[in-house]
Amino acid sequence: MVDSLMVFLKKHKQQITIELEKYIINNTNEGRLRDAMLYSIQAGGKRIRPILLLAVLDSFKQDTKKGISVACALEMIHTYSLIHDDLPAMDNDAVRRGQPTNHKQFDEATAILAGDALLTLSFQIISESKELTSEEKVYLIKELSAASGPKGMVDGQMQDMDSENQTIPLDKLETIHKYKTGALLKFSIMAGAFLAQANNHETIELTRMADALGLLFQIQDDILDVVGDVNTIGKPTGSDEGNHKSTYPQLLGMEGAVNQKNYYAEIAYKSLDHAGVNNTILSELIKYLSQRDR
Amino acid sequence: MVDSLMVFLKKHKQQITIELEKYIINNTNEGRLRDAMLYSIQAGGKRIRPILLLAVLDSFKQDTKKGISVACALEMIHTYSLIHDDLPAMDNDAVRRGQPTNHKQFDEATAILAGDALLTLSFQIISESKELTSEEKVYLIKELSAASGPKGMVDGQMQDMDSENQTIPLDKLETIHKYKTGALLKFSIMAGAFLAQANNHETIELTRMADALGLLFQIQDDILDVVGDVNTIGKPTGSDEGNHKSTYPQLLGMEGAVNQKNYYAEIAYKSLDHAGVNNTILSELIKYLSQRDR
Repeated sequence: MVDSLMVFLKKHKQQITIELEKYIINNTNEGRLRDAMLYSIQAGGKRIRPILLLAVLDSFKQDTKKGISVACALEMIHTYSLIHDDLPAMDNDAVRRGQPTNHKQFDEATAILAGDALLTLSFQIISESKELTSEEKVYLIKELSAASGPKGMVDGQMQDMDSENQTIPLDKLETIHKYKTGALLKFSIMAGAFLAQANNHETIELTRMADALGLLFQIQDDILDVVGDVNTIGKPTGSDEGNHKSTYPQLLGMEGAVNQKNYYAEIAYKSLDHAGVNNTILSELIKYLSQRDR
Repeated sequence: MVDSLMVFLKKHKQQITIELEKYIINNTNEGRLRDAMLYSIQAGGKRIRPILLLAVLDSFKQDTKKGISVACALEMIHTYSLIHDDLPAMDNDAVRRGQPTNHKQFDEATAILAGDALLTLSFQIISESKELTSEEKVYLIKELSAASGPKGMVDGQMQDMDSENQTIPLDKLETIHKYKTGALLKFSIMAGAFLAQANNHETIELTRMADALGLLFQIQDDILDVVGDVNTIGKPTGSDEGNHKSTYPQLLGMEGAVNQKNYYAEIAYKSLDHAGVNNTILSELIKYLSQRDR
């Protein structure tokens, strides 16, 4: 990882974690529900979605402060989705980020409620933000709920569950990922562009970058599930095979999957270039997401 | 039930159901997720929360149209909470409103996701309402998320789970209900008052009415779980005893519980009277909620 990205990540990951903890503590009563919410929030995620949002703001030379509440809302929604996806009725995962999953650490009822609470709180913190106008809040809530709801992330998870135990064609796999991970990643970038008041041209190019980034992100996820190091990733590898899930390496072979990933990386770089914004951090982020080892 | 309330209920229950179905069909893809969301929405709830909201608007002689999107959002949140509460890891209920619960009709994963989707969609439809200003949307989203989140309904469910298998004192029981059912019922009334631009005095009195109504509603729920008719209620009675939950009849005896309910009904009537609004429908609603048999 290059220096400028490292500095950016270090600064903002810490800031986001501190803000997330504050939001949770201020909006919960003491007890197991709060503990379970904090447990998953503090489990050391990469904070990719908030970082993407802040990096876009930064690429327009805007103060990242304006994006903090939405960035935290995004991370809460991502975290709730992991908690629910890990449940026995869903992917039935026992380990996440090197630690017991939420329902293993607490219990299933608590995990369901902690997820519900994080999802609900995400909309509350946007609505209460002091940095945003009412119009900005309404737009962001509309787009965030659309990206994470039944025509977005939740439908992606449903389709993913429906496709277990069968081989699906590549276009179906891309559709699933477009919903399941792509929608929220895309929102991260589009929310940054919106808050930076990007013009039409910039928005179109950044949208293209966002779509490509969502796909390369998922391909790398699939690749890591085959060749990744269990200690680095923090969860067992081979889980896709165990869950009989279709993946890029399985459909295209490992070399084909890597080529496909590089193809999307090229589109992402090119679109970013066309957008004409200050692209240092964002281009390093594309590289980082494409080559990450966890 | 008196005539004027019957007419009001009939008209608005139907309208709300039609609007709920439209919102879901317009904001989902075809498939099991949509089916599961519609299944629980169409299961024939009493629509008490939407009705309360519209009745308050009506009591200020306001067009109820302005409240429809929030009323539907409220019902979606109520419905999601029932789907999640019925799950095996929570109350483990197989029958609701005379039909199999969502996870029995579909499966647990689908029920979890249908709940998540309804919760997410509720905020989306407020944000997209054509009847509300941005300021109104932000206020309503803020209050609705607070009422249903980790310092509201979700915490109530958590505390309720934590209190199973033990006898709790009356004040603890009232705290649980204040969160679990009271917060959302109160929001219904306060949202109506907000949209009707109620003045300070009216708001204070209607808040008092809302608090009393939330408690008498829950006491009647507990009473019905002991003496109700299983076919009328549409779910098995005696479930509180089976789940070892503390209830009003258990803590106060049946006569004590009825007295306590009547005490809150008196407060509700009196506060409504003090509010000085057109109170025909609302006072009939207090009577209906206090004497309902399902």
